[in-house]
Amino acid sequence: MNSIPHIVIVGGGFAGLNAARALKHAPARVTLVDRRNFHLFQPLLYQVATAALSPANIASPLRYILKKQKNVNVILAEVTGFDLKSQKVLLKDGELSYDTLVVAAGSENNFFGHDDWAKHAPGLKSLEDATQIRSRILHAFEAAERETNPDLRAALLTFVVVGAGPTGVELAGALGEIARDTLRNEFHSIQTQSAKILLLDSVTRVLPPYPEELSAKAKSALDNLGVSFQPETIVTGISADAITVRQNGEDKSIPTRTVLWAAGVKASPLGQALAQASGLPLQRGGKVSVQPDLRLTGYQNVLVVGDMAALTDHTGKYLPGTAPVAMQQGRYAARLIETSLQGKTIEPFKYFHKGDMATIGRKIAVAHVWGFKFNGTLAWLSWLFIHLWYIAKFEDRLLVFLQWAWNYFTRNRSARLITGR
Amino acid sequence: MNSIPHIVIVGGGFAGLNAARALKHAPARVTLVDRRNFHLFQPLLYQVATAALSPANIASPLRYILKKQKNVNVILAEVTGFDLKSQKVLLKDGELSYDTLVVAAGSENNFFGHDDWAKHAPGLKSLEDATQIRSRILHAFEAAERETNPDLRAALLTFVVVGAGPTGVELAGALGEIARDTLRNEFHSIQTQSAKILLLDSVTRVLPPYPEELSAKAKSALDNLGVSFQPETIVTGISADAITVRQNGEDKSIPTRTVLWAAGVKASPLGQALAQASGLPLQRGGKVSVQPDLRLTGYQNVLVVGDMAALTDHTGKYLPGTAPVAMQQGRYAARLIETSLQGKTIEPFKYFHKGDMATIGRKIAVAHVWGFKFNGTLAWLSWLFIHLWYIAKFEDRLLVFLQWAWNYFTRNRSARLITGR
Repeated sequence: MNSIPHIVIVGGGFAGLNAARALKHAPARVTLVDRRNFHLFQPLLYQVATAALSPANIASPLRYILKKQKNVNVILAEVTGFDLKSQKVLLKDGELSYDTLVVAAGSENNFFGHDDWAKHAPGLKSLEDATQIRSRILHAFEAAERETNPDLRAALLTFVVVGAGPTGVELAGALGEIARDTLRNEFHSIQTQSAKILLLDSVTRVLPPYPEELSAKAKSALDNLGVSFQPETIVTGISADAITVRQNGEDKSIPTRTVLWAAGVKASPLGQALAQASGLPLQRGGKVSVQPDLRLTGYQNVLVVGDMAALTDHTGKYLPGTAPVAMQQGRYAARLIETSLQGKTIEPFKYFHKGDMATIGRKIAVAHVWGFKFNGTLAWLSWLFIHLWYIAKFEDRLLVFLQWAWNYFTRNRSARLITGR
Repeated sequence: MNSIPHIVIVGGGFAGLNAARALKHAPARVTLVDRRNFHLFQPLLYQVATAALSPANIASPLRYILKKQKNVNVILAEVTGFDLKSQKVLLKDGELSYDTLVVAAGSENNFFGHDDWAKHAPGLKSLEDATQIRSRILHAFEAAERETNPDLRAALLTFVVVGAGPTGVELAGALGEIARDTLRNEFHSIQTQSAKILLLDSVTRVLPPYPEELSAKAKSALDNLGVSFQPETIVTGISADAITVRQNGEDKSIPTRTVLWAAGVKASPLGQALAQASGLPLQRGGKVSVQPDLRLTGYQNVLVVGDMAALTDHTGKYLPGTAPVAMQQGRYAARLIETSLQGKTIEPFKYFHKGDMATIGRKIAVAHVWGFKFNGTLAWLSWLFIHLWYIAKFEDRLLVFLQWAWNYFTRNRSARLITGR
């Protein structure tokens, strides 16, 4: 019907959205499919989980973001699989034909074979995860206030974060601030600042990809917030009222009602669907085999970008599942498609790593940017402005800034709501 | 144990919270029990349902509001009943002894015997209701965009609001703005401004408690927003894909996927529990018999305030279930308790009615204040500032103001998220 090519993009995260935007001038029809109606600014999701921001502060409707881009059509639908031979994306309620396909369905929590842990230890991938975690944290303090049995009260006031990567560190740091600052003096029967916050990981230091020096700074900042980092700790079980771990060869049970999972992610199940459709074996972490130009091995008109792509750096390690990688891959995919339409080719994808930043608390962050290491207030301010800069593309910078300023000066967190049925 | 009297307040809405605050200097221990951890600014709940504000903009933790008031203890618990003889409030998981009891549990949606309609026609009482309504409205447009059958598409683009009181009028007006302004030009297959918005009521005019002149102004403002008011219309059935009504003696079925219920409320089921405990018959609308001083008939140390109290004005009509009535009754209850402690008595409760205001849309509102009738931009600005003034007691005025300014200038509604499992 249409002679101009139809590009279907699956997923409106950092990778898919950036691909769609970079196709602005492409002589093509673009359809962006997502099962959610919004783009989520995932790097700030932990701030929703810890009551500092509201969901709408970090999520913006895809239609709104792409309103002015006339060659893009957004549809809300759930993708269930692919028929690569007949060039179709299969939906729960229909299908979509494509000339070129970009799959950018992201990742989900990985419980490494222990899916039964999920109900006791929510991970942090969706807005619903974040508001659920927020409710659990706040509810634990409320329940502790009413509990008269000291052991049960201590269990309610024990918070365990599994995984000492950036998400785990940011969650644990914010928990420390909630207990020491935000809720202080609001309870009568408990001392919220006596809450025990444990950060567990099997590795030896927090933020393992950072230089050791910054890991040490982060660890001492966490100490100051009352967060106890437990290195070389393997989780062996999680139930409704305890987490069991192995430490130095010993088994230990820690009574707790709140375990948060930040130990890892795996590619979306659509990776499995692509593997099935293409006959290619799935890679580690559920990722999909791609060529250095992000094309699905054996398929010139299918690209896989973002967390789903099994692309390694020169050391053989996967590229990290971060927003910068996803954004760069999304833009690369758009450029590759546009040049292909002109009959030309481009160089393989190359990730340009600017740096890493993680915030731990008020005026405390660590950053490793362009080879420079810094921490403290300067790193925190840099973190603030970089995040404001990026979120401003979608949402109103001023509102987020003011929410932060308000939280900063009042030491309050305004979104302290226990919601959900 | 304690010789100072213990006052238990059930409910942290406008009535209960104002009672607690007004007891600031009372020589008493006050316990405020609520099943939610926050006070909800209900007059703006429709703005959450229509994506203009976020839940946290209109809800503030009770602990935070009462942080500085040392004689108040907040507990999160569900009240299940009362033992008036032994002076106990029964909780789902425990009990609370009181010397004086203030019951302020508010109201819930009233489906007038058709509780099966609730799942197809959500009412607007809780934050969860509001985010559910928001998801339904936004989802209907998304589904219409993908629907190819013109009849089904028309049904998806038909929105029915039942009840033309302030909540119904505000919801319908906001729906008109969403269809005509907010979503305009964001869809490819549908014209959002062609959405049909019906406002049904059994009465003859919108906003029945207002002067006829203002009802007429409100009706014409609704017309301009594409809202069709259908007077003298009785709802006879609601299913997943239609609402059936009787109009001028004729039965009619209107295909629709979105019905919103704003047709009325009834007192909390705790009214029934109080009636049971006291042996008093329940009044119309599930309300509780009270003396002119808001004391439960026959019980000197039990007060019932807010939506639950069956108090009539000089014409024999119930006082309206509004925030001003609840606030005044809450403060009155506190004064009565304090004077009783001093062995004195006070005059019966008298409601001081300042006026009514309802906003219909951008720069359009109607107001009837201190006998003056006005409408248009002036009424709208008054509405804005009065609501900002009241919400500022709980939340940051500046953030709400800026959110509104942002929405106003961009004609966007930032909280357009379809969430929930």
